[in-house]
Amino acid sequence: MKSRAAICVGPNRPLEIDLIDVAGPKEGEVLIEIKATGLCHSDYHQIDGSIPSFPYPVVLGHEGAGVVLECGPSVTTVRPGDHVIPVAMPECRQCPNCASGRTNLCLKFFEGGARPTPFSWNGQPLAQYSQVGTFSNFTVVSEINVAKIRADAPFDSACYVGCGVITGIGSAINAAKVTPGSTVIVFGLGGIGLNVLQGARLAGAYKIVAVDTNPRRETIAKQFGATTFVNPRDVNGDIVEHLNALTGGGADFTFECVGNTDLMRQAVETARPGLGVTMIVGAAPTASQFAIQPMSILVGRTIKGAILGDMKTRSGVPKLIDMYMDGFINVDDLITHKLPLERINDGFDMMKKGESIRSVVLF
Amino acid sequence: MKSRAAICVGPNRPLEIDLIDVAGPKEGEVLIEIKATGLCHSDYHQIDGSIPSFPYPVVLGHEGAGVVLECGPSVTTVRPGDHVIPVAMPECRQCPNCASGRTNLCLKFFEGGARPTPFSWNGQPLAQYSQVGTFSNFTVVSEINVAKIRADAPFDSACYVGCGVITGIGSAINAAKVTPGSTVIVFGLGGIGLNVLQGARLAGAYKIVAVDTNPRRETIAKQFGATTFVNPRDVNGDIVEHLNALTGGGADFTFECVGNTDLMRQAVETARPGLGVTMIVGAAPTASQFAIQPMSILVGRTIKGAILGDMKTRSGVPKLIDMYMDGFINVDDLITHKLPLERINDGFDMMKKGESIRSVVLF
Repeated sequence: MKSRAAICVGPNRPLEIDLIDVAGPKEGEVLIEIKATGLCHSDYHQIDGSIPSFPYPVVLGHEGAGVVLECGPSVTTVRPGDHVIPVAMPECRQCPNCASGRTNLCLKFFEGGARPTPFSWNGQPLAQYSQVGTFSNFTVVSEINVAKIRADAPFDSACYVGCGVITGIGSAINAAKVTPGSTVIVFGLGGIGLNVLQGARLAGAYKIVAVDTNPRRETIAKQFGATTFVNPRDVNGDIVEHLNALTGGGADFTFECVGNTDLMRQAVETARPGLGVTMIVGAAPTASQFAIQPMSILVGRTIKGAILGDMKTRSGVPKLIDMYMDGFINVDDLITHKLPLERINDGFDMMKKGESIRSVVLF
Repeated sequence: MKSRAAICVGPNRPLEIDLIDVAGPKEGEVLIEIKATGLCHSDYHQIDGSIPSFPYPVVLGHEGAGVVLECGPSVTTVRPGDHVIPVAMPECRQCPNCASGRTNLCLKFFEGGARPTPFSWNGQPLAQYSQVGTFSNFTVVSEINVAKIRADAPFDSACYVGCGVITGIGSAINAAKVTPGSTVIVFGLGGIGLNVLQGARLAGAYKIVAVDTNPRRETIAKQFGATTFVNPRDVNGDIVEHLNALTGGGADFTFECVGNTDLMRQAVETARPGLGVTMIVGAAPTASQFAIQPMSILVGRTIKGAILGDMKTRSGVPKLIDMYMDGFINVDDLITHKLPLERINDGFDMMKKGESIRSVVLF
């Protein structure tokens, strides 16, 4: 079938809007009509070429929500008409990692790249970003990458749960396991970091320090749980010393939500020696190296990484949708812009300039 | 009083044996007659100048055992005649970290450097390594750095418990929390790594892979718990791929016990994505930087550091001594050489050549 899509044709090129071809669902696959899709920094990393995970041309997008139109053979967990969120991390429920109950990192994640893309463009293969490619009105996804959600959740907010919300809240409550009464520092207040704030507050953190060079983020940071906002540009002297003084010798939990290796070092050095846990949440450019003095780790610190907040996707996304629908978590206030597909490049421009938190494309 | 001691006068110089002066115990301090002291790689790091933690000249040694001779005012937890192990990590039992019960990293550790040294030499100040300086027949130590042990434990084995044993076994059972049935890789089979093996076996690990370039370590590694010995020099191709194949996709727990930043990277990359925990146990040269691709962490891995195995020292050392005296852990077979103080430089030569595991100096 034909589908309107935004195509990333190469690094630092505007996305092109065109009709592409989508092959129908094969064994274990699901055809989904995407209704809404968020613009995430990870998409931008492929646009600017800093994390070229997929070959160009590629249909980006991994934060979508939509409706199942058709299921391939042997699909049992969703059926046509179901409202769903396609997720970048599969949950096969069969591999040793899924069975362990101790991680969301399904081992099928590493096989994703070998799956043939359902997309083509003018007869040429067209990659599907993160095995979901939600910047296409129609996409075909493995069943193990599909989370079924309740039908009354609005697509334009629900889509954000599939990446930004689960990553931020999951990093706080599930991966770092923020504890009541603890101190927290969050570096980077984008669509992920603000959700980390929200997750830290949910988990009962006592002092939550939010760090960003964008002064416009102070108000929303405080709305989402920050007790203190620090703009490193306003700090005289070393930011690490400043934050350590502010937290009485380092925080129990620190989160790097940008993908900047210097901020990763700062996040480690502001975690409390002996007790502190640093979560690496942001994805750094492929060529980058995180460098740190080994002694900074040896003094009893922990550095931890997780994708999508270490929350199982098919199991976790529907729970987060319930929390959102019950007003337990705030999703709507982070969605600052809604755009038609034709204006998707404007969305990325606003992201670059720090003007938007989350832009959502509506089909 | 006068004391025979081995003095490190500068980088890459043999230790000098001479009489030094030891000032009597002040408030909160304890005078100890050292009976035996182990030679640890950390001492050697100050000898070769790679980790010059203290100014030269300095009396090294931090793995001693002896008898309390005299207590300064307000000392309440030991008295003359007690058998003790001075420990490099204090346990003040008053600071927030000690009170938390979640770390052995007493915050007084960071104040240690400010304590005046009790040593002098020809009228000049003489630094005291790690606030204990056990390469002196007599030393004066803060009460919070003294673990009281049972009187029937032989000094020549007990001394090793104060650093090598507690670090190795503690890293496995206490810091990493190795679980029954898990897979483990240990990089570096010196006086620490062999104790990590022992700790992993105690904790019920199922597959324990021991990695060292010294082929003479295979027999002792297997005696201490290794189920497989790997010499990287015998591996065709990439050692990381080899170890990942051997452990079915990475180990649950990996331990870097050398202080080599390239091995740290290998230890992270051989920890199972989603689940694996890498313990940084070895102390790396001060100038070194541990560099790693952030994606290696992001895929659900954890990197953790600890000093002395994250075991509280004054509380933990006596327990380990009990385990040793009951035959529950093996200390004796790792002590390969016993030397008089005059031969201490021979001991470090054997360490460098990989001929000894632990040499102990007897006063």
